[in-house]
This record gives sequence, structure tokens and C-alpha cells, in this order.
Amino acid sequence: MSSAKYERVLSIQSHVAYGYVGGKAAVFPLQLLGYDVDVVNTVNFSNHAGYRQAGGTKATAADLSDMFTIMKKNGFLRPTRLLTGYVPGAEGLTSVAKLSEDLYGENPGLVYLLDPVIGDAGRLYVAADVIPVYRSMLPRATIITPNWFEVEVLTNVKIVDHISLHKAISILHKIYQVPHVIISSIPIKKWLYDLLPRHIRPSEAADNEEDVASYLLCVASSRVTDGSYPASVSAACVPIIPGYFSGVGDLFSALVLGHYNPSSSSTAPESLSRAASLALTKTHAILQLTYEYSESLPPEDRQPTDEELDAQDPTRRIRRMSGRELRLVQGQDILRGAAALPVRELRIWDGFWNGYSPVSEQLDPQ
Amino acid sequence: MSSAKYERVLSIQSHVAYGYVGGKAAVFPLQLLGYDVDVVNTVNFSNHAGYRQAGGTKATAADLSDMFTIMKKNGFLRPTRLLTGYVPGAEGLTSVAKLSEDLYGENPGLVYLLDPVIGDAGRLYVAADVIPVYRSMLPRATIITPNWFEVEVLTNVKIVDHISLHKAISILHKIYQVPHVIISSIPIKKWLYDLLPRHIRPSEAADNEEDVASYLLCVASSRVTDGSYPASVSAACVPIIPGYFSGVGDLFSALVLGHYNPSSSSTAPESLSRAASLALTKTHAILQLTYEYSESLPPEDRQPTDEELDAQDPTRRIRRMSGRELRLVQGQDILRGAAALPVRELRIWDGFWNGYSPVSEQLDPQ
Repeated sequence: MSSAKYERVLSIQSHVAYGYVGGKAAVFPLQLLGYDVDVVNTVNFSNHAGYRQAGGTKATAADLSDMFTIMKKNGFLRPTRLLTGYVPGAEGLTSVAKLSEDLYGENPGLVYLLDPVIGDAGRLYVAADVIPVYRSMLPRATIITPNWFEVEVLTNVKIVDHISLHKAISILHKIYQVPHVIISSIPIKKWLYDLLPRHIRPSEAADNEEDVASYLLCVASSRVTDGSYPASVSAACVPIIPGYFSGVGDLFSALVLGHYNPSSSSTAPESLSRAASLALTKTHAILQLTYEYSESLPPEDRQPTDEELDAQDPTRRIRRMSGRELRLVQGQDILRGAAALPVRELRIWDGFWNGYSPVSEQLDPQ
Repeated sequence: MSSAKYERVLSIQSHVAYGYVGGKAAVFPLQLLGYDVDVVNTVNFSNHAGYRQAGGTKATAADLSDMFTIMKKNGFLRPTRLLTGYVPGAEGLTSVAKLSEDLYGENPGLVYLLDPVIGDAGRLYVAADVIPVYRSMLPRATIITPNWFEVEVLTNVKIVDHISLHKAISILHKIYQVPHVIISSIPIKKWLYDLLPRHIRPSEAADNEEDVASYLLCVASSRVTDGSYPASVSAACVPIIPGYFSGVGDLFSALVLGHYNPSSSSTAPESLSRAASLALTKTHAILQLTYEYSESLPPEDRQPTDEELDAQDPTRRIRRMSGRELRLVQGQDILRGAAALPVRELRIWDGFWNGYSPVSEQLDPQ
């Protein structure tokens, strides 16, 4: 971020006392990057739900509205950037949607990163009535960071080939008017691998499809309004780090927002791609650090997931997950950019729209 | 902090969305110093109460107890250090008191910094029934950071001369068994100035009493159990920075806890004095940075306090205070220790106990 320009992020997401998800994964990295961050907690929980035993309080829609009203009265609703993540329930999310409209009304230059927290891998985290609220919010977003499943839910397109992939991405840009879409952590199935140009495929994997299963794909797509295709697409492959880690998406989204430079609209695709590259680089380095730490723990704290053993000994799961809490504090040099890291550059995916037909863009009934 | 030893802070205090008081003033500095921080929010407010319009929710005693119960079940209540600040109401504070007993039972080496948030300058911030709860908590604390008024309230001693000062300090160490007491930001009245040895007096002020009014005194007192006096006392004077700033005590307490090294009990007074010196140095540098920023604002945002003008234009007060929110993010190099700063050393106050009589230690009826 430029030291000359005043920048302030309003972050609206979950809070946990223990561990690093939601705001705990996002606020510290943004502060390290130099942003003042205003922090509205949508829940106050002991820890993330993956630990099974979790408790605390949720902000009601009225709690959120009251908070925004007082902040507005005091003149404290003047962020240059907005970051929204998990909000419990459709009513609460509607309060946040209204806020995003108000903020945009006061400052059309607002950079809004919306992370639509809906679910993952075929499973909804939220009640179904939240989905249309997210859809209504998309036109206000500058950048969205859905996962693969969330793209499918938002667009109502099951992505199984390049035609459905074109359709989903173009719906986000053309129907929902989203300037920038980043989908990270995409498992690389055969059809997707076959689409990848050689310069985006992982170099170690070359043409071997099985080796590719140890990589994830990150795709960044920026709307193009004056071209024959809906968007300019970039991508990169990153090695999968074994095990399950929580808060990774929250960290990634915060870093994308922190590194995005909106100053030049003509270079928008490059600006998004650059932000995604830096976010990917730092997130992967933090995951690597976390993985190495978890591997240094006593064997009983780092066994692979095994639901049956977990059922016999509930603390086993807790110890395993606890050993995989993100090492943000220990990796602060990475986040700040003080550690020298080779940047994992997203590269232009030239032939992405090969075979594209605008006819496919119409919304199916939802 | 040593990178070899695992250190984790549990911070229990207020949260504000906008600005830097309570946890917002404490957590980021501790993270910068390398601590994992578990963050329990006792209130979730829009901003601090000094802005007049403030709102949000308070954690009830049951909310806090439930949070601690789940964290305990998950094995997440194993901090090496505990930091407690503002807790609303005697019942909630009793939950925190019980937690501190539990943590001490599990780990007698726990370093507990208790900031007894009671009031300032003759005015109580809290209901009177909170005071006996704080008194009951004192024997579990490693370090307490009351202000002058809070020392008077806790000990029930009005401090007007060296005899009453001896009495108050010795009551904290001998009756309440507190190892370490730090009182910062003490206005230097004539009798106190007369007590100060030359090497602690501000050098610029020399013997001129009026110049001393532009300084504050910081006193650190460590219990001595094998000497003829109750404690070893160190002190330093720091220049007053004009204007009112919020969250300064919360920042100072966090830095004292972060810099305190409990590893050598025989050097305890030196360890406290060192932590206080570093905390004082960094807090003063952040205040200086904040002051310079507030002076750079347009004139209408930096007028001196004037209650009458504020009443005519309520936003005036808000703008003035907002311009004086601590510049923690911008001063992160200071907090991390990366900025080269001359340390404001607390120095041994040799004659502090001159005229001391142990008879004075008995508690007055309260």
C-alpha cells in the first residue's frame, strides 16, 4: 500500500478467542501491511466449529445494525476498503448488504472484497436463505473469493467441463457485474488439467496427470467490457500441503484485499493478478510454516484424520487441529513482505475462452 | 521473548470496532512481539465511551463462564501469560477471578498482569461492588498496573505524602501479596517532587518545580521478602504529551507483560524495571507519533478540549478524539523494537523507604 494515501479497512467477520480463522486470520496480516482495521465481530466464539465443541455468542441482525448506526453517527464509517466474511443468518447478512450499499453510496471508489461464505466440497455451511442475499450483494463487490463449490451455488451452474466453466465465470462478470473473481484451491481434475496451457501446468508434473493431483489451481478473472470475451483470466498451480488447515481462505482474502491496487483502472487485470500472486505466495509460505510446525509435534498430535479413532478419543481431533492453527505470528516476516520469497506468479491463460459462446450466459431458473 | 520457549497470552478485555483501546491496543503489540494471543472480548462496542455515542453488546457473566468452560474442555486454557483489563460488572469480574484461580492451579508459573480498571483522577468508571472483587484478585497477580487513583481505592489510602505513599505500596505488597506494582503517569506534585532523588528528576527541569509539571512519573515496585523494606523501587520521569489520548494504559500494560522476563526470580526487581523501561519507551514513542499526526490534521480537528463548543457541535469532540487514536499500525516498527530508540530507563530509587515504619501497614476499615 502507498504510504501517501490514507487507507482504512472495515472487516466484518467471525471472531474466535483461540486460533486463527475469520478476523483472527485477516486483521493481523492487514495491520502488518499498514492498514488501520476497524473490526466488527459477527460472532464471538471460543474456537472454530471444526473442533466440534465450540460456543459463544452471535451478533443478531439488530446488533449489527445498531453497531453500524452508531459508527455512522460518529463518522466512523469511512473505510477505503471493505472486507466481509462469515455472517450468521440471512437477516444479519442483509444488514451487511445494506451497509455495503450505504458505503458505496458515500464512496463509489470503495474497494469491496466479498468472500461469500456458503460451503465447501458439496456441503452448505449456511442456511439456504443466505444464498439469494449473497447473490444480491455481488453487484456491489469489487473482488469476490468464492471456492469452486460457492461459484457453482452462486451461478447455479455445475462445473464439469470448459463450457460450464465459461458459463459460470461469465455469469459472475456479466449477470452479477463482478469486476474481479478469484477462485483459489481448485482440485485439478482431468478435464481441467487438459485445458491448462503448458506454462501454467506445474513444471514438475509436466504431462503426468497423476502428479497433478498434488497441486491446486488458483484462477483470477477480471471483467473486460470492451473485448470479445467476458474476462481476462490468469492462473497458477501451487503444491498441496498435506492435512487440513482452517482459516486459509480468510487469510488469502485479506491478503488479496491488502495487496490490490485500484489506482489504475486500465491495468485492472494486472492489478488483480499481482494481488493474487502475492496473496498466494504468502498464504502458501504460512501454510508451509504451519505444516512444518505440526510435523514437529509429538506423534499423537499429528496423526492423519481418522474419524473412528477420533470418536474413541475426542481430544485426539482437537490436538490434531490445534497443531495446525496458522502460524501467523511466527510468520509475520512473511506477511509483512520482509522475508525474501520467490513470487508464485499467476500467468495469463490466453486460450481460456477457446470455444466460448455468449449464448451460454443466460441464467437457469434458480 | 525467547524464541525457544513457547509463550501464549490469554487477553481478556474490551473490544471496540473503531479505534485503539482495550484489546485493540494490546493484542497487536503482543503479536508483534511474537506472542500467540487468545482474545476474549468482554464487550463488543462500536468505539470507546469517550466519544459519548457508543454502543454494542456486553458479555454477561454466563457468557464469559461458558466461553472459559468450552476452552477448558478443548484444552485451550493453557496460556503462559494472562492479561486482564476492563470487565463489565462484579459478576463478570468474578468469572474472570475464578478463571485466574483455575489457571494458577494448573500452572503456578503463570505470569498474570492484572490491570484493575476502576477509575481515574478521583472518578470511578465502575460500580463500587467491583472494587472488593479486584481486591480479592490481587494475590493471584504477578504484576498490577493501577493508576494513582486506583492505588488509593484498592488500598483505601489517600496518598498525600511519603508516609501514605509508603503505606499504600506496602499494603499492596504485604497485605495483598502482589510481587510487582507499576504505577505510570503520576502527576508530580510538590511533595512528590521533593522526594525524588536528583538522578530520577527530569534533567531539563533540574530544581525548578514548575517545569516539573510538564512531566509524569512512572514508579515500579518489586516486593522484597528478605530485606528490611517491603520492596525495591525504581522510577523515571517522562515528558507529558499535550492532549488526551485513550488506550495508553492498555498499550502500556500489554508491553509490560510482553517484555517481562520471569525466568530469573533472583533478579525480579531488575526484570520488572527492564520491562517497565521498554514499555515506557515504546508507549511514549507511540504517543509522540500520535501527537504529531493529530497536529498535522486540519485546525478544526485539533482544537483543545472545550466542553462548551463541543456541546454546540457534537462532532467536534468526535473529530478531536478520533485524530488522537493511537498510531499503533503506523508505529509497528517502534512496537516490534525495530526502530532505534534511546531507552527511558527506570532507575533505582534508593532512599524511597527513608522514614518507613512497618506500623503503618495495617489496613484501615474499608
